[in-house]
Amino acid sequence: MMRPKIAFAAAADKTKFVFDAEALSRLEACCDIVREEPLSEFSSTSSQAVLAQIDVLITGWGCPKIAPEMIKAAPRLRLIAHSAGSVKLIIDQAVYAAGITVTNAADANAVPVAEFTLAMIILANKRMFEMRDRYRADRNRANSTAMMDEPIGNYHRTVGLVGASRIGRKVAGFLTALDVKVLINDPFVQADDPVLAGAELVDLDTLLARADVVSLHAPLLPETRGMIGADQLRLMRDGTTFINTARGALVDEAALIAELQTGRIHAVIDVTYPEVPVPSSPLYDLPNVFLTPHVAGAIGRERLRLGELVVDEIERFIGGRPLEFEVEPALLERLA
Amino acid sequence: MMRPKIAFAAAADKTKFVFDAEALSRLEACCDIVREEPLSEFSSTSSQAVLAQIDVLITGWGCPKIAPEMIKAAPRLRLIAHSAGSVKLIIDQAVYAAGITVTNAADANAVPVAEFTLAMIILANKRMFEMRDRYRADRNRANSTAMMDEPIGNYHRTVGLVGASRIGRKVAGFLTALDVKVLINDPFVQADDPVLAGAELVDLDTLLARADVVSLHAPLLPETRGMIGADQLRLMRDGTTFINTARGALVDEAALIAELQTGRIHAVIDVTYPEVPVPSSPLYDLPNVFLTPHVAGAIGRERLRLGELVVDEIERFIGGRPLEFEVEPALLERLA
Repeated sequence: MMRPKIAFAAAADKTKFVFDAEALSRLEACCDIVREEPLSEFSSTSSQAVLAQIDVLITGWGCPKIAPEMIKAAPRLRLIAHSAGSVKLIIDQAVYAAGITVTNAADANAVPVAEFTLAMIILANKRMFEMRDRYRADRNRANSTAMMDEPIGNYHRTVGLVGASRIGRKVAGFLTALDVKVLINDPFVQADDPVLAGAELVDLDTLLARADVVSLHAPLLPETRGMIGADQLRLMRDGTTFINTARGALVDEAALIAELQTGRIHAVIDVTYPEVPVPSSPLYDLPNVFLTPHVAGAIGRERLRLGELVVDEIERFIGGRPLEFEVEPALLERLA
Repeated sequence: MMRPKIAFAAAADKTKFVFDAEALSRLEACCDIVREEPLSEFSSTSSQAVLAQIDVLITGWGCPKIAPEMIKAAPRLRLIAHSAGSVKLIIDQAVYAAGITVTNAADANAVPVAEFTLAMIILANKRMFEMRDRYRADRNRANSTAMMDEPIGNYHRTVGLVGASRIGRKVAGFLTALDVKVLINDPFVQADDPVLAGAELVDLDTLLARADVVSLHAPLLPETRGMIGADQLRLMRDGTTFINTARGALVDEAALIAELQTGRIHAVIDVTYPEVPVPSSPLYDLPNVFLTPHVAGAIGRERLRLGELVVDEIERFIGGRPLEFEVEPALLERLA
């Protein structure tokens, strides 16, 4: 494939910053860009005319599902390069059956999630959100600094990572710079896994009972749905923090809200189920909850990483070199 | 000095966690502890009886100033080991004149400050406090995720560190794990300083004009008092964040409040001047201010690091080995 023809498919309002001038110029150097404006559907005459020509499709957030009719309309298509976190929601095995190779930018999206998690672990161990609120509510030091005598902070405390996923491993990597103990729970991690050089593999109940901060990094699969329920939350000790940057449906949200309403534990919640909580949800207002609108992943300029990873992959593909982030059929089923 | 006699001096309510059972047992293995309860004053008969015997004094937060009368009462004293951030407030050159060696745990206290700063830089670049507030105020994604298209995040952004102090250098070290550009301003840093391997040395005005986050790590000296005033704050671009974990008096606080009241910039403020702001201070309530009660340094279990560093130093002193954190007379003047 000397100079492949290429197009984009994504929601136009979610592509800002993904490809900057430098990334586009790298693409133009090795590909013919059939159309720079991303396709938002695959069925119109103009979309079909684009699909008929292209060898490579760069997908992104808001890309329509790649259905059999779309695959049929793109007979030359050899590579789908997804410039977002996970390609799982837009493709299925039919893509592989048509001989199309798939790659995605999950690794680039994992970086900001891991950075967000690191920041939240540091502040959770120091109980900084509570410090701020107490200082605001009672304008002297007595109320807030009384907390300094509690066994808090980031020294010889325990962080539990549920899921040695791409993100979980990056968090574990960052944590080697701190003086904390790291516990990992993951049914697929073997004893010789390099992540265990800096962490201890334990079962989920042990992790929940020992950790000062629990951070969730598991994929949403039939067997992980609701994996954190009332029985699991009850195991967390008073004053600990639960962080979810993974998927809302991993958690029994009603049970989590009930536990948070006791004030016994804290939470940092970037993902919910449903994804925007109903306006009356206590998650918005509970003082011990730091709720954010699914923004731990790539936002603003962080999206540039996604575009750069995808251009790297396309250059490898054209050059006949192995892809670094190929999503093979078996992997697709285990993706987040 | 085979088995020195040792005592403590600190405010009793600020010593929790500094020396745990293991640290005390290490001390007992090499010293005779004359009195474990910390002295809170040096003038009573019982205090004078302790001072008369000791070779080593472990000081801590709330230790009374080491005045000439105290030095006279402690003729055998050879080492002051300060188990807190900076010994500057409790000693002066008279201590050196009496032949007393001084060490302090500033390095151990720098670690949590640098960790706190790292967390705040990550969240500031992602504008996470504003994301949370917007989501709370407007319970759908539109208002908060509109921010995702602003040029925010931790990729190819610029962090300015004012002061390549012990803490500033630790922050610079942590930042090498992120994909950010680091600017440093420090009048004492030379071109061959190792910190410049990962950072660019610039003047203060350039730093303020280029940085997305500005973090202050300068000591409070006559020439740094009020170094950040209206003229400096005006140089910061819209949407940037100012972090102060150093000293409140480095900043013209009225000018900072005026700038924050425009909503143009954000701030994370752990130190103020005066140290507890008056109850009517806007710093408590401004939505673009994250105010904390001087808790970036060692709190809770993080204080254990201070005790361990001091025991390490005392073991070195007894063994005739060089101290790692000796505070020499010339250094005292430049300490934070």
